[in-house]
Amino acid sequence: MPDSISDTSFGFDIAAIDGGARCGVIRTGRGQIRTPAFMPVGTAATVKAVYPDQVKAAGADIILGNTYHLMLRPGAERIARLGGLHSFMRWYGPILTDSGGFQVMSLANLRTLDEEGVTFQSHIDGARHLLTPERAIEIQCLLGSDIQMQLDECIPAPGEHAEAARAMELSLRWAKRSRDAFEARRDADNGGAGQALFGIVQGGTYADLRRASAEALAALDLPGYAIGGLAVGEGHDVMVATIAETTPFLPVAKPRYLMGVGTPADLLAAIGHGVDMFDCVMPTRSGRHGQAFTWGGRVNLRNARHADDPRPLDPNSACPAARDYSRAYLHHLHRSGEYLGAMLLSWANTWFYQELMAAARSAISVGQFEAFVATHKDRLNAPEPV
Amino acid sequence: MPDSISDTSFGFDIAAIDGGARCGVIRTGRGQIRTPAFMPVGTAATVKAVYPDQVKAAGADIILGNTYHLMLRPGAERIARLGGLHSFMRWYGPILTDSGGFQVMSLANLRTLDEEGVTFQSHIDGARHLLTPERAIEIQCLLGSDIQMQLDECIPAPGEHAEAARAMELSLRWAKRSRDAFEARRDADNGGAGQALFGIVQGGTYADLRRASAEALAALDLPGYAIGGLAVGEGHDVMVATIAETTPFLPVAKPRYLMGVGTPADLLAAIGHGVDMFDCVMPTRSGRHGQAFTWGGRVNLRNARHADDPRPLDPNSACPAARDYSRAYLHHLHRSGEYLGAMLLSWANTWFYQELMAAARSAISVGQFEAFVATHKDRLNAPEPV
Repeated sequence: MPDSISDTSFGFDIAAIDGGARCGVIRTGRGQIRTPAFMPVGTAATVKAVYPDQVKAAGADIILGNTYHLMLRPGAERIARLGGLHSFMRWYGPILTDSGGFQVMSLANLRTLDEEGVTFQSHIDGARHLLTPERAIEIQCLLGSDIQMQLDECIPAPGEHAEAARAMELSLRWAKRSRDAFEARRDADNGGAGQALFGIVQGGTYADLRRASAEALAALDLPGYAIGGLAVGEGHDVMVATIAETTPFLPVAKPRYLMGVGTPADLLAAIGHGVDMFDCVMPTRSGRHGQAFTWGGRVNLRNARHADDPRPLDPNSACPAARDYSRAYLHHLHRSGEYLGAMLLSWANTWFYQELMAAARSAISVGQFEAFVATHKDRLNAPEPV
Repeated sequence: MPDSISDTSFGFDIAAIDGGARCGVIRTGRGQIRTPAFMPVGTAATVKAVYPDQVKAAGADIILGNTYHLMLRPGAERIARLGGLHSFMRWYGPILTDSGGFQVMSLANLRTLDEEGVTFQSHIDGARHLLTPERAIEIQCLLGSDIQMQLDECIPAPGEHAEAARAMELSLRWAKRSRDAFEARRDADNGGAGQALFGIVQGGTYADLRRASAEALAALDLPGYAIGGLAVGEGHDVMVATIAETTPFLPVAKPRYLMGVGTPADLLAAIGHGVDMFDCVMPTRSGRHGQAFTWGGRVNLRNARHADDPRPLDPNSACPAARDYSRAYLHHLHRSGEYLGAMLLSWANTWFYQELMAAARSAISVGQFEAFVATHKDRLNAPEPV
């Protein structure tokens, strides 16, 4: 029997479980996603400074698009007229879109939130918009996204318990409206083959709220679940503790997505607690600012010590950006403000994050995830030793 | 007999002459250059926003590096320690470097010019530098450039006759010092295999001065000659007239290089007067600003009329950037200030300029250059018809 609102062609197969971690494959109408999966962020219909074929060759099975940005520019209806987001940006694998809610809260002006939804002014041109759970689904359908997210309310950290409870309850009611909108659309136009809607667990850093949110969402029998409202200032340890208090109450057989996270060490910790999917701007944003991620640690290419260093970032990488160009050259490009500096490091970091996920999947599949984490965790987040 | 100061492996073979135009091959120690040739500009050791393999695949045989920028950052001695400019920037074909003189005049602070050379302050950090004909050669040898340019003085347009004559005469004396420095270096370290030094014709827009400059330089029997001091505000017609008054006095058998030019129509006009080589920032600078060059004319992708246009820039192009991405997408990227917008149009324009040169070579080789120019000249420089 297929899930109530997921097409038969959407599904999740767990291949191995290793402690709290698992690896597997998410099936979508546009192809498979190997998990644990890191989704490069293509906010405005482009993974910043990286060509789509480079994203693919790096090993990414799925990317993320931001509904808030795309609805404002170039507009969801325009993208639909042009054939959908995939052909617009020439990414033909699966795409997950967020609901737009998080960025309405962080970027838009004059926000007013009520039971119906959230009204706001565009940060680009000041135009007024209303985003409801139904409109968020409609936009994501216009974009043609393969994994769609319910509209939710994410409060700033640290929030009071009552405020976190209120936002979590509202998000839960919005989850039901999102589900109904997603189902209605599928019934109406027979679309949505291989597409899925994910619910979002909220509740701040309060274990009781996270549990209540997870259990209530689980009762909706959605195709997948996200953990939202983290990585908003609470710190690594509190974040990991909150994840650990959430995943036990999510269905084992459904994919779990930790939104907006994070550093390599964040990812490994969350995988250890059963998270399957991630997205974060960190690899590309850091790349634009001269920071590289490597197995040896973080490398700030703007640092003067690289000016005469003929070594590449990582001679063992299969990524040309990490393997073929000297640190001296990367240093020069970043000091000179050259496009190619951002291009090469965004590419190298996008690749490294995929290497990290591939290595995690490999370790899980042979029951060595704990040893893998012990070997790499501390080094990955620290500056590379000089 | 080899030229007096060019190695046997540097040379120029003219394959066909068609009216004033000619096509052929320049041989260098790092490979052949098909002429007429357009050299993409890699000012700071990168063709802005384009990967080196994209430059090569576009058809470019040679690129240009700017001595002024490279001597200031990262420094010529540093590049030499790192193995030279070719491996530093991962461009393994021929590289032509200018002498730095032109950009000292246009970018540096507190310039003082005398017979010895020019002292100036770096526009980057204010450090004082002295650039002499000998130091310009030394720097270009440190970079390892295949075609080196003499230091010259380029005056702003329109210059008085006396001022243009003074600068031309000084440039001529500097040509001799440059030649001596280039020869001494080759004798000293047995380097320079397949390398060449070009002299630069000056004289403003005065036919008598251009002729005198060309004849005096020709007497030095240099491996090639550049026409400098044009495209500095004199306009297309005066520029072409000046070229026409210069090339007849340059040796037929030596390559001729028009510096810093230009639009597609500029290139075709100059080729018709026997010019073999060009460089210009136009394809990449225009690309960063949303302007594309196509066989149908110039296209400003920032224009709102492209917002819903699913057509690519040129469905017949072999360049993925011109062929595979919609104008609507390019419009969106440029309106959104995304890196990929600059990347795609810089790539497409770099490719188009190479297509234009390939088509010109092809037309010359079959004696159809005049007809080729008549067919394309007006359209190439005009906005694409709506």
